Amino acid sequence: MENKSVTSQEKASNEIKCFFDSAPPLKDGIDISKKLQEFLEENSLSSGNGGSKRIVCVTSGGTTVPLEQRCVRFIDNFSSGHRGATSSEYFLKAGYSVIFLYRRGSYQPFCTSLPNDPLLECFELTDESCIQAYPSHTDAVKKAIKEHQSAVKGGHLLKLPFTTIFEYLQILQLIATSMKTLGPYAMYYLAAAVSDFYVPWESMAMHKIQSASGPLDMRLAQVPKMLTVLRNDWAPMAFFISFKLETDMDILLKKAGMALQKYNMHAVVANELLTRKEEVTVVTTSGNISVRRDKAKGVTDVESPLIELLVEKHSSHIEDSGKRA
Amino acid sequence: MENKSVTSQEKASNEIKCFFDSAPPLKDGIDISKKLQEFLEENSLSSGNGGSKRIVCVTSGGTTVPLEQRCVRFIDNFSSGHRGATSSEYFLKAGYSVIFLYRRGSYQPFCTSLPNDPLLECFELTDESCIQAYPSHTDAVKKAIKEHQSAVKGGHLLKLPFTTIFEYLQILQLIATSMKTLGPYAMYYLAAAVSDFYVPWESMAMHKIQSASGPLDMRLAQVPKMLTVLRNDWAPMAFFISFKLETDMDILLKKAGMALQKYNMHAVVANELLTRKEEVTVVTTSGNISVRRDKAKGVTDVESPLIELLVEKHSSHIEDSGKRA
Repeated sequence: MENKSVTSQEKASNEIKCFFDSAPPLKDGIDISKKLQEFLEENSLSSGNGGSKRIVCVTSGGTTVPLEQRCVRFIDNFSSGHRGATSSEYFLKAGYSVIFLYRRGSYQPFCTSLPNDPLLECFELTDESCIQAYPSHTDAVKKAIKEHQSAVKGGHLLKLPFTTIFEYLQILQLIATSMKTLGPYAMYYLAAAVSDFYVPWESMAMHKIQSASGPLDMRLAQVPKMLTVLRNDWAPMAFFISFKLETDMDILLKKAGMALQKYNMHAVVANELLTRKEEVTVVTTSGNISVRRDKAKGVTDVESPLIELLVEKHSSHIEDSGKRA
Repeated sequence: MENKSVTSQEKASNEIKCFFDSAPPLKDGIDISKKLQEFLEENSLSSGNGGSKRIVCVTSGGTTVPLEQRCVRFIDNFSSGHRGATSSEYFLKAGYSVIFLYRRGSYQPFCTSLPNDPLLECFELTDESCIQAYPSHTDAVKKAIKEHQSAVKGGHLLKLPFTTIFEYLQILQLIATSMKTLGPYAMYYLAAAVSDFYVPWESMAMHKIQSASGPLDMRLAQVPKMLTVLRNDWAPMAFFISFKLETDMDILLKKAGMALQKYNMHAVVANELLTRKEEVTVVTTSGNISVRRDKAKGVTDVESPLIELLVEKHSSHIEDSGKRA
């Protein structure tokens, strides 16, 4: 058994090395590393209990897979980023600092109740040519600006955007490297919808694919399972939550259970596409827990009880790690 | 020659019929038709010269192709919508009424100089808890709200959003049907980046594609060339501008020339991906015209001279149509 596991882990490391070697270089990599370093230093220093501040990396939104090097066409994974954005709000309220690794254009924390195009839909010019929010939107707009900016300016929320699968995995590696010193106080809440398939950069068309004649046949390679390396090599002490989204409930629970085992997650949040805003199933080794938003109690998001549950489980994880050490 | 042309046109009509028959039904189709009807009535009535107001349909942004019926993955065509949004501003300034058929989330007229996320990047709360634009953004924000809202409220700008290739083509058909009575006063400025390939709805996976093992092979069918039917059947009298975007200059001019002939366009605007904000080539039967933005004259957009040129050509088209009638 052990041999087999080592072999599959080595295989995963190898695949990821190949993936990174063939990826286009990350723009602003140095700048991102610097921001991460500053954020972590500030949050460790500001912590009351000996530098053991809890920090969660929330990933959010879908990644894209370019089909051409000078990208005109790409494959996208649907995800509004609503779950990641809302969850980040509750993590901040629970006292966590949040690294929000999000898809450009996806939902932002404290902004999920705003219209799609807030500038054009929420504001008007008064007769005196002053900018003014429509009365129906004033509260939502004020909340968004106030809470979002207070989290960013207070140094508790670091936002890092990505678009492609390459950027996503490269930045996630930088985050993991920076967060390693946090040990069990680090949490990964991997809500992003990561592409399963990609076109290796080297084999990608340099110019736009021509549509001269006939159907287009494409062969996509599987994206290597980064989770193995992230969990075992990059952040072996951290607390890990991953997500499964499926449209078929039977497949969903089966796959969530498989992911829990295969990647040695602490919990897998199982989402069914149509009901995921009302209810999710938290799959753990000690059983499945159904989490629902409680309309009777006026709870507006399923993320409220979900984050409450995960924060508790993270506390146990930190405690257990202390005992083992 | 004539026989061949009739046959290829019949073939195109047939392909489009199949495409529409197999497409998912358009949501809000009745509502869109009603809006179009009201917009056209208002603009024909408000016109001074016997109802012959010029109206342009500007299409903008990229279309998506769903890979699954309950859509998780899709193929997207890159387009920020900058060209369509900016061009719409110049058409409005030139006295046109504009039907703006745009991809959800793409650039909006009068908003192209704003940051990606204007609410979070342009506003702050004052100490008195008032919403206020940062001084550096005040002018851009005011301009966006004022000019955009005055165009919409004045009834000169109708905005219709789409996401998928199915919605795009279905709404375009509704627009063409409504605009037919305008004859040569109608212009189509087709700046949207329309997918060349799609997965026929019927053959689409019902549930999420599974990534169990191995590479993914996909076969995509060609999207039928709507332009043939739009030009010849739906709007035979209108003035037509289409666009070509390529990453290779030689391929670009060749394909623009081919499109001009094949679809009987009045002009094809040829864009090279990297230089398209500085210069475009307007390909017509009477020759190619290079249009550049003139920095010396303080012209900030290549769309300014481009729309000026096209408005002139549209005037000639209207005049010629009058002579022929």
